Amino acid sequence: MADAGIDKLAILGVGLIGGSLGLAVRQRGLARHVAAYSRTPATRTLALERGAADSTPATPEACVDGADLVYLATPVAAIVPTLVALAPRLRPGCVVTDAGSSKSEIVAAAEALALPGGFVGGHPMTGSELQGVEVARADLFSGMTYVLTPTDRTPPAALDRVAWLASAVGASVVRMPPEQHDRAVAAVSHLPHLLAAALMLLAEARSAAGEPVYELAAGSWQGATRVAASGATLWREILASNREAVLAALDELGGSLDRFRALLASGDDEGLEALLTLTRELKVAHPGRPG
Amino acid sequence: MADAGIDKLAILGVGLIGGSLGLAVRQRGLARHVAAYSRTPATRTLALERGAADSTPATPEACVDGADLVYLATPVAAIVPTLVALAPRLRPGCVVTDAGSSKSEIVAAAEALALPGGFVGGHPMTGSELQGVEVARADLFSGMTYVLTPTDRTPPAALDRVAWLASAVGASVVRMPPEQHDRAVAAVSHLPHLLAAALMLLAEARSAAGEPVYELAAGSWQGATRVAASGATLWREILASNREAVLAALDELGGSLDRFRALLASGDDEGLEALLTLTRELKVAHPGRPG
Repeated sequence: MADAGIDKLAILGVGLIGGSLGLAVRQRGLARHVAAYSRTPATRTLALERGAADSTPATPEACVDGADLVYLATPVAAIVPTLVALAPRLRPGCVVTDAGSSKSEIVAAAEALALPGGFVGGHPMTGSELQGVEVARADLFSGMTYVLTPTDRTPPAALDRVAWLASAVGASVVRMPPEQHDRAVAAVSHLPHLLAAALMLLAEARSAAGEPVYELAAGSWQGATRVAASGATLWREILASNREAVLAALDELGGSLDRFRALLASGDDEGLEALLTLTRELKVAHPGRPG
Repeated sequence: MADAGIDKLAILGVGLIGGSLGLAVRQRGLARHVAAYSRTPATRTLALERGAADSTPATPEACVDGADLVYLATPVAAIVPTLVALAPRLRPGCVVTDAGSSKSEIVAAAEALALPGGFVGGHPMTGSELQGVEVARADLFSGMTYVLTPTDRTPPAALDRVAWLASAVGASVVRMPPEQHDRAVAAVSHLPHLLAAALMLLAEARSAAGEPVYELAAGSWQGATRVAASGATLWREILASNREAVLAALDELGGSLDRFRALLASGDDEGLEALLTLTRELKVAHPGRPG
């Protein structure tokens, strides 16, 4: 174990992310002890069985007891309430980080608590429609972008600690202000989720009218709607926690669609092809990871 | 070779679909001779080298000479002009079919020509952002949905012939009127393509303003934008050939998005979760093929 290693890591919330973090940290020997807490006893048992934790205390208080690093991997809406409840129990110098998909609200609330070792907002960009410790895997973070959102109130030592952890489990760390993160993920993550849901709504209306939409759905449909299978509560919480940025992204998408609509409606096929050529070039220049 | 086999199959346009058809027909011994024509000499050479044709005549007239089945696999905008030019050269009883992504305009134009053996509109739903005989493969049609769009003017024998071919190369044949096909693909194929393009436009505007959108793009973004890499000319032709249905689908999507927008803007998180639950259930009930 590296000198930078963690003494006791406490993971609150053992789903895909919390479970994968536990697996990665234990397999790489990054902490002397990994404690994990889930409010569901069966999940705690499974986390132990899968090797995602050394111990699974029956209460969140016992889980964070003596921890020098606390990792909040609960659903977005539970992060701040969990932190408020546990803040008085944290040992001196304990650093806290989270894995929530939106950052501004969470970071502001966490900083208001004046935690002993500081708070570092985080977002591992491991997006998946899969959920649960059942699908956790030690290599989930490998090659992934891991955003950290420090502010001028973030202790440098806390930031270094969390950045070290994210790198140590294989992720590429990117730092930016919480608001910048939220605006960006509203566009590239929250908006595609809403689009997937809106497309399903459209398809169902067509299908109910007797149209063979599901029968003719091919690759582009599947790509655009895959994430509609994501958890509804999870996504309601994410969208609600990033409301203004998501609404702004929706408006911008409307503007982009209107450009295509106007060209199509007016019969300006030359202009339509020029815009499709531009967007094709953009996609070729920014292919991203496989979807 | 089955008794239902083809004497001479003429393929006009040797891209992904035309090339794959040639490969599949030759590998399965479905025709005594496969002739293929591309206006690009290098493509004709490659089609021969890859085994997608027995011969690659230098003119479309020579290609269709003596053929009992003509397969039009050119870009959408070239299908009708090609057919108009070749109609006088078709031998008695020759059946013509096409692989265009929209059907109403093409079928109406083809039927106006009163071809000797009849016309059968077709659309193999093999959507891919890949193009060209380079990526053609004999199993492209395996397990794919292949739409045929007969009308009351389609000779039953012609329909049977094309349905046999589509089944023989491994596809599942679905029959529906051209207009129904066009409305459905406007929703499940043309709309996702426009969305992919609109998302790239949005991302570029954000990126130009210094926002880290491309850096944070994860799975849902890739799924929604993959097809933005498709050919711009190809898609301009498809969209323009299905203009009214695409505009209608765009309007319906706007209505679906507005439902989500209103819930989000009004803070009705319960209603938002209920709608996300519904769309999740729809996606789970209609998972479709992998995207």
